[in-house]
Amino acid sequence: MKHSLASGHLTRRTTLTGLAGLPIVAGTILPALSQAPTSPATPLPSWNESASKRAILDFVARVTHQGGADYVAPAERVAVFDNDGTLWTEHPMYVQLAFALDRVKAMAPLHPEWKNMQPFQAVLDGDMEALAASGERGMMELVMVTHAGMTNAEFAGIVMQWLATARHPRFQRPYTELVYQPMTELLAFLRANGFKTFIVSGGGVEFMRPWTERVYGVPPEQVVGSSIKTRFEMRDGRPELFRLAEMNFIDDKIGKPVGINEYIGRRPIAAFGNSDGDLEMLQWTTLSGGVRLGMLVHHADAEREYAYDRKTEFGRLDTALNAAAANNWPLIDMKKDWKVIFPFELG
Amino acid sequence: MKHSLASGHLTRRTTLTGLAGLPIVAGTILPALSQAPTSPATPLPSWNESASKRAILDFVARVTHQGGADYVAPAERVAVFDNDGTLWTEHPMYVQLAFALDRVKAMAPLHPEWKNMQPFQAVLDGDMEALAASGERGMMELVMVTHAGMTNAEFAGIVMQWLATARHPRFQRPYTELVYQPMTELLAFLRANGFKTFIVSGGGVEFMRPWTERVYGVPPEQVVGSSIKTRFEMRDGRPELFRLAEMNFIDDKIGKPVGINEYIGRRPIAAFGNSDGDLEMLQWTTLSGGVRLGMLVHHADAEREYAYDRKTEFGRLDTALNAAAANNWPLIDMKKDWKVIFPFELG
Repeated sequence: MKHSLASGHLTRRTTLTGLAGLPIVAGTILPALSQAPTSPATPLPSWNESASKRAILDFVARVTHQGGADYVAPAERVAVFDNDGTLWTEHPMYVQLAFALDRVKAMAPLHPEWKNMQPFQAVLDGDMEALAASGERGMMELVMVTHAGMTNAEFAGIVMQWLATARHPRFQRPYTELVYQPMTELLAFLRANGFKTFIVSGGGVEFMRPWTERVYGVPPEQVVGSSIKTRFEMRDGRPELFRLAEMNFIDDKIGKPVGINEYIGRRPIAAFGNSDGDLEMLQWTTLSGGVRLGMLVHHADAEREYAYDRKTEFGRLDTALNAAAANNWPLIDMKKDWKVIFPFELG
Repeated sequence: MKHSLASGHLTRRTTLTGLAGLPIVAGTILPALSQAPTSPATPLPSWNESASKRAILDFVARVTHQGGADYVAPAERVAVFDNDGTLWTEHPMYVQLAFALDRVKAMAPLHPEWKNMQPFQAVLDGDMEALAASGERGMMELVMVTHAGMTNAEFAGIVMQWLATARHPRFQRPYTELVYQPMTELLAFLRANGFKTFIVSGGGVEFMRPWTERVYGVPPEQVVGSSIKTRFEMRDGRPELFRLAEMNFIDDKIGKPVGINEYIGRRPIAAFGNSDGDLEMLQWTTLSGGVRLGMLVHHADAEREYAYDRKTEFGRLDTALNAAAANNWPLIDMKKDWKVIFPFELG
């Protein structure tokens, strides 16, 4: 996923991982997240009977048909999913960016100097133009000050505390309720057919791992993402992993196949994305001989969610859209293919 | 695992990942590896009725006893294993180093300049003293020239081709037959009790992944190791991951808890090692509250395998040995605790 915020450019490279120096209140109540989906009797109930659904059902039938020409052993049934814009909403900004901005506001009382220092001043003033103007460097400063400087365990606590209270500006719901119901059904359907499902996201891995199991049914060891470096230390006889203000890995674009190899060690047979950041992941997955499935979520529903592709203000599905046509990657049209977008629409 | 070779020092840092420039013969026959172990009716049959075995059985009973004070949900039952010296033999040198030396010899006809160039000359002359004298820099040259410069798929083929023919100098058997039978039983026993078993090795991850599933029952996505960088490229319309002569991650000592967090994302509840390189992994695993198990394989059987610890020529189990006493990490005495060392002793 690539997008620009307002007229500036807040790219994936600059909106990564996860958080800074405030003490964690012990006994923080974790938010009630939606349950991991289980496989329904009828597969993909929130999908209309469209070409997209048929492509999924046909692919799964072929690779699971024992004795068939296209059979794939369960161990090799690896499916990878982008997160932002593929499994949950990414607008009006990446959820992780919203988190970073809120963290800056929460930390501001301890940093009076931020009132006159960019990019912090822009965040505190709510000046998105100025924030975008701070560029990649400014965004990286925001990420590091809000994502580094504490242990991993502390950071996970901060993330969960934030998710428990933050609300999406349009839908006024917790972000973890703004996951795509048809995609969680797809995850469950693949798992019910012997697949191992992985998230491969440009987002920060430690921002996702605390909640992906409960929300998507994807355990932390199956989440690949961008990361900052950590340092192991014994402190008062206790081992700690301390988060450093230094990038470790950027899991976007050409980084996605690299990350898939490094963190998973198997080549996927199915991949799902929604942007140019997912192009190489779909290439790596599908251009390998054998029956493979690559699909792109197309945000085409301004009423129920958002509509964007190409070089719009919000999204960037451009070269990958061309590649989809060339490589027979079915588009998932949110408007036409999905009966509902979000779980709360089910009532 | 740390050891020195002859009188020099070929440390883990310098004997990492995987291989160079020779073309792969298509249709290479992969070696017949031993089957992944399955859980026997009686657990740990190759273990004597010793304190070590009791420590394992007691730990597993406690964390799997539903309703018990020490119960751990299956999702959290993560066990991590070092490889060299913990799951298979590491003497007289790391298997991966033997691989690199053989590769230099195989590649030498294409590199006539190596006859007068260290460290290659030392390898070709079989001069281990001169090789050790080349130091970390020399070892890194060997690693890079033998592990980089091809695609990951090509490298996996080279590794399997080598394993099919290489023989251990003392036991005259394929290296994959020199795995510790009691430890493969332990892996299987833990899995039968709901554990996910991971390898966390200083060795190169791409050197291990092609065979760990068949030999240990550990799939590639559960192997963490050292790595060199890879680059994604489209070549003639085909996606490739190309291996670069640049270190990516060193999964040893303080790198092990960092790697565990980065690649697994859960804190283990059991860890098994055999050297100072495993110290921090055992600290990270066991010093976290709750019932935890950390164990060290102690090479105490010169007749059936090898005997070394402290600052001997071969091994380095020194600070970790002190820490074992302080932290109640049971030692696994290969001589006293194991009925057999290798699977072939079972006949």
